[in-house]
Amino acid sequence: LNENQLIAWLSSRRGVSGIGDDCYVMPGSSEDLVFTTDMLVEGVHFRRSLTPSEVGHRALARGLSDIAAMLAEPRFCLLSIAVAPWCSDAWIRRFYDGLLKLAHQSNCPLSGGDLSHASEFVADISVVGAVPRGKAALRSGAKPGDFIYVSSPLGGNAASGYRRKPRPRLDLVKKLRGQVTACMDITDGLSLDLHRLCLASGVGADLDLIPVAPRAELHHALTGGEDYELLFTSWKSLHYHRIGRIVKAEPGTLRYQGRSLQATGYDHFKGRVRPGPSD
Amino acid sequence: LNENQLIAWLSSRRGVSGIGDDCYVMPGSSEDLVFTTDMLVEGVHFRRSLTPSEVGHRALARGLSDIAAMLAEPRFCLLSIAVAPWCSDAWIRRFYDGLLKLAHQSNCPLSGGDLSHASEFVADISVVGAVPRGKAALRSGAKPGDFIYVSSPLGGNAASGYRRKPRPRLDLVKKLRGQVTACMDITDGLSLDLHRLCLASGVGADLDLIPVAPRAELHHALTGGEDYELLFTSWKSLHYHRIGRIVKAEPGTLRYQGRSLQATGYDHFKGRVRPGPSD
Repeated sequence: LNENQLIAWLSSRRGVSGIGDDCYVMPGSSEDLVFTTDMLVEGVHFRRSLTPSEVGHRALARGLSDIAAMLAEPRFCLLSIAVAPWCSDAWIRRFYDGLLKLAHQSNCPLSGGDLSHASEFVADISVVGAVPRGKAALRSGAKPGDFIYVSSPLGGNAASGYRRKPRPRLDLVKKLRGQVTACMDITDGLSLDLHRLCLASGVGADLDLIPVAPRAELHHALTGGEDYELLFTSWKSLHYHRIGRIVKAEPGTLRYQGRSLQATGYDHFKGRVRPGPSD
Repeated sequence: LNENQLIAWLSSRRGVSGIGDDCYVMPGSSEDLVFTTDMLVEGVHFRRSLTPSEVGHRALARGLSDIAAMLAEPRFCLLSIAVAPWCSDAWIRRFYDGLLKLAHQSNCPLSGGDLSHASEFVADISVVGAVPRGKAALRSGAKPGDFIYVSSPLGGNAASGYRRKPRPRLDLVKKLRGQVTACMDITDGLSLDLHRLCLASGVGADLDLIPVAPRAELHHALTGGEDYELLFTSWKSLHYHRIGRIVKAEPGTLRYQGRSLQATGYDHFKGRVRPGPSD
């Protein structure tokens, strides 16, 4: 059972509604609200060599990146943490320092949560955002002929050993609103994330040029993950890195410079996977 | 650093707003939305002897109980889980079966979440509810002279070794709306939870009669926890179990049959604690 398979199984169940995008969208009268949750687990999403303040920053950044992916603006967040036996009071306070600094900068105050303990440190952030009515960018809107863009060269974080502080692209939210047909954030590697966007839109993608960050290689950009950049499609010519075009094809099929490209990246449920054609 | 101390420290920080109640309340134009997150950790909130379906039920029930405590109705939920190495695919499916059954019964569809892995199983549920504008019941509204009520005799779950399926009191939401000055759910033991309600309201409580569930003893009712019943105050005479009155006193002070009562119960952050007078 991998991440894609579990989500497919869940989608057909009674008691499930609206899953599969970066955020759930709740329609409102003047604006829509978007909701996301993201878990940060010791040893999976961070190592103890990271400073507590960086861990706190990262815990919130993951959620903010999902809000940016919907082209929404953050409103507030809730945080559940389970502290591990090794977490000192000072570590916990500095963890919150890092998280609250980003919360303040992003206009996303911490407004609730839960406290528990476990053998490893776990933080789960819930972020609520808002977007003008009907303007949330989904994964499912890409159309054949659309250009495919990324917001920056990719792979830099993977090439650095995942040491970089994630910077959610909230700065692009207003610039891209109304300009894109589909959008998501790149957290599990361009190839796996683009595969998911194409599946959601029922299309394929032909890639020609992939911008690679300084000191990174192509495989970092394609499968490294943790980029926290935006991947989006548009009928328009935009001033971002154009990497290819959406095509009519078996949903989820990727091609790079004329050859078939496997969707490989990080499956948070089971580790690194190469989804089969049935995913 | 215990739960109450951490919350007090957080409340004064920049980047924090609106913490301290069962849910965060977001004012809306026709209705207010309420938000809660609750973590369920293997070995802390459940043992592996529980069936996966019971674990799933419990994960959502904790959040629904917080929604009931605000006298709100659930709208949808998001779930983050970290699966442990021992979790088989069948266990995971049955966990969702239990959760989705309660989600369906409670009109609270699962609408998103996150998937990860850890050495223990961890589930964090976020539930969003709604309540008519200005009608959310807070912990902070109790006034001297108010009667104190509980929705049912207490201690039954503690006396059973915490084997009972929690039943969030969503059935009371409409009956109690407009009738109470303060409300919360009892999850950490009556004495600790009433202490928290009194602190939030700046009052004390004089208890005279505490209804004890069949096969339970007074200490189960006072400190056992996991009751998932409602604790509320009202200026009115209501047909629930009246346990005492709110009084003008040092905030958080409890008395039972004329004697001082220590607030003892479960602190989810550090295990069982007896908060000192400075909490």
